Amino acid sequence: MEKITLNLHGSFIEENELKRIKPEIMAAQKSLLNRKGVSSEMTGWLDYMYRIEKKEYEEIKTAAKYIKENSEAFILLGIGGSYLGAKAAIEAVRGDFHNELLSPQVYYAGLNLSGAYLKKLIRLVKEKEISIIVISKSGTTLETALSFRIFRELMEEKYGEESKNRIFVVTDKNKGALKSMSELKGYKTFVVPDDIGGRYSVITPVGLLPMAAAGLDIDKFMEGLKSGAEEYSDRNFESNACLLYAAARNILNRRNKEIEIFVNYEPSCTSIAEWWKQLYGESEGKEGKGIFPASLNFTTDLHSMGQFVQEGRKILFETTLSIENSQDDMEVPFDSNDFDRLNYISGKTFNYINSKAFEGTFMAHKDGNVPGIIITVPKMDEFYLAKLFYFFMMSCGISGYTIKVDPFTQPGVEAYKKNMFRLLGNKEKI
Amino acid sequence: MEKITLNLHGSFIEENELKRIKPEIMAAQKSLLNRKGVSSEMTGWLDYMYRIEKKEYEEIKTAAKYIKENSEAFILLGIGGSYLGAKAAIEAVRGDFHNELLSPQVYYAGLNLSGAYLKKLIRLVKEKEISIIVISKSGTTLETALSFRIFRELMEEKYGEESKNRIFVVTDKNKGALKSMSELKGYKTFVVPDDIGGRYSVITPVGLLPMAAAGLDIDKFMEGLKSGAEEYSDRNFESNACLLYAAARNILNRRNKEIEIFVNYEPSCTSIAEWWKQLYGESEGKEGKGIFPASLNFTTDLHSMGQFVQEGRKILFETTLSIENSQDDMEVPFDSNDFDRLNYISGKTFNYINSKAFEGTFMAHKDGNVPGIIITVPKMDEFYLAKLFYFFMMSCGISGYTIKVDPFTQPGVEAYKKNMFRLLGNKEKI
Repeated sequence: MEKITLNLHGSFIEENELKRIKPEIMAAQKSLLNRKGVSSEMTGWLDYMYRIEKKEYEEIKTAAKYIKENSEAFILLGIGGSYLGAKAAIEAVRGDFHNELLSPQVYYAGLNLSGAYLKKLIRLVKEKEISIIVISKSGTTLETALSFRIFRELMEEKYGEESKNRIFVVTDKNKGALKSMSELKGYKTFVVPDDIGGRYSVITPVGLLPMAAAGLDIDKFMEGLKSGAEEYSDRNFESNACLLYAAARNILNRRNKEIEIFVNYEPSCTSIAEWWKQLYGESEGKEGKGIFPASLNFTTDLHSMGQFVQEGRKILFETTLSIENSQDDMEVPFDSNDFDRLNYISGKTFNYINSKAFEGTFMAHKDGNVPGIIITVPKMDEFYLAKLFYFFMMSCGISGYTIKVDPFTQPGVEAYKKNMFRLLGNKEKI
Repeated sequence: MEKITLNLHGSFIEENELKRIKPEIMAAQKSLLNRKGVSSEMTGWLDYMYRIEKKEYEEIKTAAKYIKENSEAFILLGIGGSYLGAKAAIEAVRGDFHNELLSPQVYYAGLNLSGAYLKKLIRLVKEKEISIIVISKSGTTLETALSFRIFRELMEEKYGEESKNRIFVVTDKNKGALKSMSELKGYKTFVVPDDIGGRYSVITPVGLLPMAAAGLDIDKFMEGLKSGAEEYSDRNFESNACLLYAAARNILNRRNKEIEIFVNYEPSCTSIAEWWKQLYGESEGKEGKGIFPASLNFTTDLHSMGQFVQEGRKILFETTLSIENSQDDMEVPFDSNDFDRLNYISGKTFNYINSKAFEGTFMAHKDGNVPGIIITVPKMDEFYLAKLFYFFMMSCGISGYTIKVDPFTQPGVEAYKKNMFRLLGNKEKI
């Protein structure tokens, strides 16, 4: 088993800077691991993979098997942490165009309020054999609850009594609208633990059920989490990549680098960045603090945002996710005419060329005074993806404690909801 | 015909600030319209829609008709400005899940170096009836040229001699590898004009051919461009939305708002933001200047990045694209059980609820001291989308001249390419 490695050689960070921040990082790690920091009651994700009930875990597999065997497609209803982790994992592991190449298909709803989106999705799935996974801790998240009302109706029309076997609910253990409705209707339910917030919930049934339903190997995923927990709980600053990442981004932020760009070179990994943005943005973006998390897909976006990164305002640093061994590859064929003059790289693989593009970009951005951090993953499978998730989650908790915010709350998310419920005339919610 | 309107009421911008910046904006507009500014030889987009050759325009329609009638799918090969505008338009007009609901399907390639992506795309399309549109001014852009070598081979295997009728090339009028290859092979070619750069090229065959092939009405699109040119060339600062947008973003940037977030509430409009990012990022991000362009999709991302916007570092302002009349809609059904307690909004449409979410979010972010600009489009069809493109292009040119950069070059894009070609051992390119 290989490690996920962190490379700071292009970060312009000096030894003495690391030395200076080390006590802060170590103190933050200690608070986190000893569960003495703020909101420590929300750090259940630290060891959840050791604690998950065997029965719950087996039932996830049973439900997933049922979904796979009885559905051409399943629709995941959920917003924020209730879909981002699963979507990232499903795309990264199943690969590009997975919905066109693999079964079951996976669609997402309950994550916006667009009538057009929902109407078209229904047109698309209504003739297929489908199942529904609905995920909401409270059961009252408007986007998800509204879409579920629509889909519940559709499922009852389509399947009658059988519809209850095709609807799976992930929600609070005891309370909430989804829980009570599930009891009345007979839906199978899974638990969103009380001690794990949305953006850390990919390691719970929130992530596990849709991943398993999409054919991912969740045993390997759980192994990856355990490997991460073991490795990143280490208290040696210099050899723990997780601590060094937290240190590096805070050093850069203190030098007025306001934006961290998550870069990847594989289109199938695009949604990992979306998950990462929620994790860091929601954990750190409070009390006027935080690094703005953005993402770019290279080489694609070198032809759109590359100019800004190279020569624009010097407020950025880049964190590149590099995958050593790609799932799949192709060779550049030889062409006897060589009209396009590409024969000098015929016989080379695309992934080799992509890696050279990465090297060239990294050097160019370094020359442009953009600090770069490289996170290298041996390959993108369930094991390493889980380990990467854990790496980021642990590092985020430490980083949040380092800047003295509560990384486990999201008070600012309520502001728009309150206004919205008032405008909609909801008397219970205002 | 209604106008695209600009609302600055949530921007915290005061009358006297607008007055102060007005002379700069007016001077920039004058330079642009009189073609006296830097790189004025690259402002052909200002009036291209009046100058396009009738023959070229008709041939675009003929080619599009051929593609539609003979293909289940077409693949657009191109990177940066060679695909972003067309993709934005196709998605915004055809709507969500268009590839699953409408014909022909549209796929994109030649925009990255991932072997996995290309291999899976080929697996996906090889049994379908397909056509290819390849777009590259120089003909030597590595990403596009490599993919084209692969697809050319595939097309020749699949269709033999007939393949030449299924390959359409948009490139330089006279020179370059793609042009000479097309002459030898007998591919139909269209012209990327010399006086229009990639990020302004959506109004040329670069955008028009794929749009038309995807079934969009390019006559309406051209009308929208003309309407934009007429309206936004007006020299009245106070009534020209295009000038006011350029003014507003520069006022905010001078107050140290470093990031502009392009917000939309319709998933089908997501790619408009990608096009906009290239336009502004590549035009302004130079000489250490520029506003970092980012994008969020609401209400989706309120559950990931909403916390940061509301309470994080105060370096942001938001520009929201609001669409008055959506393509499609659904009503919230009444449910006699009301388990989910949503009956208070039964009978309301999703788009009504979405508009209330927008109002509530806008107020919340204003309360959080995040300046907001609203751009309202009556509806999202070919006419208004073209007018919106023109609005942003004109405003971008003016904004670039205002901050004294050359908005029509992209010198920084070469840096990574040079390194990459050296690493790949290309002796011609280094």
